[in-house]
Amino acid sequence: MEKIKVLIGSRQEPEVEAMLSDVPAEAEVHFLPHGESLSAHISDVEILFGRLGEDEMSEASALRWVHQPHAGVEGFMYPAFKASDVTLTNCRGLYGTQIAEHAFALLLSLTRQIPTQLEFMKTKHWERVPCVELAGMTMGILGLGGIGRAIATRARAFDFEVVAADVEPIDKPDTVSELYGLDELATFLAQTNILMVCCPSTPETHKLLSHAQFNQMPDGGYIVNVSRGKVVDEDALIAVLQSGKLAGAGLDVTYIEPCPPDNPLWEQENVILTSHSAGASQHIRTRAMQLFIDNLHRYVAGEPLVNVVDKQKGY
Amino acid sequence: MEKIKVLIGSRQEPEVEAMLSDVPAEAEVHFLPHGESLSAHISDVEILFGRLGEDEMSEASALRWVHQPHAGVEGFMYPAFKASDVTLTNCRGLYGTQIAEHAFALLLSLTRQIPTQLEFMKTKHWERVPCVELAGMTMGILGLGGIGRAIATRARAFDFEVVAADVEPIDKPDTVSELYGLDELATFLAQTNILMVCCPSTPETHKLLSHAQFNQMPDGGYIVNVSRGKVVDEDALIAVLQSGKLAGAGLDVTYIEPCPPDNPLWEQENVILTSHSAGASQHIRTRAMQLFIDNLHRYVAGEPLVNVVDKQKGY
Repeated sequence: MEKIKVLIGSRQEPEVEAMLSDVPAEAEVHFLPHGESLSAHISDVEILFGRLGEDEMSEASALRWVHQPHAGVEGFMYPAFKASDVTLTNCRGLYGTQIAEHAFALLLSLTRQIPTQLEFMKTKHWERVPCVELAGMTMGILGLGGIGRAIATRARAFDFEVVAADVEPIDKPDTVSELYGLDELATFLAQTNILMVCCPSTPETHKLLSHAQFNQMPDGGYIVNVSRGKVVDEDALIAVLQSGKLAGAGLDVTYIEPCPPDNPLWEQENVILTSHSAGASQHIRTRAMQLFIDNLHRYVAGEPLVNVVDKQKGY
Repeated sequence: MEKIKVLIGSRQEPEVEAMLSDVPAEAEVHFLPHGESLSAHISDVEILFGRLGEDEMSEASALRWVHQPHAGVEGFMYPAFKASDVTLTNCRGLYGTQIAEHAFALLLSLTRQIPTQLEFMKTKHWERVPCVELAGMTMGILGLGGIGRAIATRARAFDFEVVAADVEPIDKPDTVSELYGLDELATFLAQTNILMVCCPSTPETHKLLSHAQFNQMPDGGYIVNVSRGKVVDEDALIAVLQSGKLAGAGLDVTYIEPCPPDNPLWEQENVILTSHSAGASQHIRTRAMQLFIDNLHRYVAGEPLVNVVDKQKGY
C-alpha cells in the first residue's frame, strides 16, 4: 500500500524530529530540504506541517491537510485556500501559558518601572521611582480564547476585576465577571483600565481599536497586545500615548512586522516592544509536534482532527 | 486635660495630612519642621510616627509608642530601644499586594527577556529571543508572611508548584503544598527553581543564603529578593550567577543600600536591580496613615494596638 506522504516544512531540533518515530506506519515523513522551495516538493504531499503560500497552493494537488505549527492562521486566508477542501489545523491551546506570562511581563514592567531602573543601572544610580499598584483595577480582555482565559485566571489572582469581550456567544468562565459582545465594546472599554488584546486578526477585528475606542477608556490606562498588531490602529494608539490618555503600552506585535524603522512606537515613551516573542517557550516545539503526531494518528484512523480551523471565520 | 502629643516625623502629601483631622480629640498632632533634628523635638512626645535613631532614643523620655510607616523594623533593633517599654508598631499587611506585583515584574522581566528587548528598541532591532516558560516549575518562598502569601496566591494561578520555608511554626495555607522549617532549608532549596526571598532581616536570617544554599538549588533557577539584602551573601550570589548555576536575579534590595558603585551586581548579566521600590504604590501613604489613625483611636481607648512588633524576634 502506498504510504501517506507527510512533509515537514522546515528542519526541527533533533529532539523534536526524534518524536516523529512515533508516526503511524501508514505515513512517510519527509523534510523540505533547507534552501529549496516548497513548490518543487508539494505536488504529491498529502499532509503538510508548516506554511503554504498562495503561489504554492496551486501546486498542491494531493494536499488534504495542513497543520500550522502556530496559533494565528491569517497567512492561509487567501481565496484559493479558503475555497479548497484542504483541512487546516493550528496550535491553539498550546500558547495560553507562555503568552499569559509574557502579557504580565509587559504589563508589570510598565507599572513597576523596569525600563527606568534598567537605565539607572547603567550609571549605577539607585533611586526609588513611583510605581503603580494594579490590584483593584479592571482588566478588559479582548478575545476570550485560550490565551485570554489563561490571562483571566492570573488576573483574578492579582486581584483584578476581569471583564471580557468576544465576537463569539461563548459561556462566561468564572474568572470573568462580565462578558460583552463586540456590539457592546464601548461599555467594555469604559471600565477597562488595563486592555489586554488577545483576539485573532480577522476582517472583523482589523483596526478594531482606534481613536474612538481608546478614548472610551478611563484616563491613565494601559494596553498590552499579545495577539496581532492588525487589531490596533497605531496612529490612534500613538496619539493617546502622546497625549497621556494612556499611560503605557506593552506590545509584542505591531501592525507591520518586523516593526519598520519609521514607526514612532520605537521611540515613544512608556512603550515596550518585544519582537513577537510572547509565544516563545522551551516547551513549544515539542508540544506543537506532539499535537501534530496525535492528529496524524487520528487522520489515518479516520477520526476527526482536533484544532480544525474554521476557514470562513479565520480562526 | 493635657493632650497626648503626637509627632509626625516628616511632612506628608496634603491629602495624607488631611486625614489627620480624624485623630481623636485627646491627641494633638505636630509635624517635625523640615530640616530640624528629631532630638530637639522628641522630649515631650508620647507617640512618634517615623524613625527613631539610637541617639534620639536617649532624649525620648515621654515616648510610649512608635509607629514605623514601613514594614521592616531592623533600624529599631538597638539595645536601648529593645530594652525599653516603648511599643513599636509597623505597616505589615499593607505591602503584600504591591510587593507581589513587583516580585512578578522582576521574575517575568528576566524570563521574558525584557532587558534584551529594551536594548533592541534603541537600534530599532526586531528579533525573537528564547524565553523561559515558568508554569510547572516550583517556586520556593522563603518567609511566608503577608508578602510571601500574596506571592503564593499569584504563583498558584501561574501554575507554579509552591513550597515555602518559615522560621515560625505557622499553619500552611492552601496555596502552598509543603511548608518547611529553617532546619529543612536544604530540602526546600533542592526543589526550588524560583527562590522568592520574602523574610525580614534578623540575626537568624543574616546571610542565610550563601554558597551552600545556592548550590542546593537545581541548575538554571532564578532568585528574586523583595525583602532585605542582608539575607543574601552577595559574594555567593555573584559566584552562582557568574558560573551559570543560577540563570538570573531580580533584586529590589542589596546588602548595602544604596547599592555601592563597586558592587559587581550593577554590571552582572541577568541581574535587575530596582532601588528598593517594591513597596511603592499610589495607595501606600494613605493606607499607612489610616492604619496609624485607627491605632491612635485604639490607643486613647486603651485597646490593644494592631501590628505590634515583637522586639525580641525583630518582626
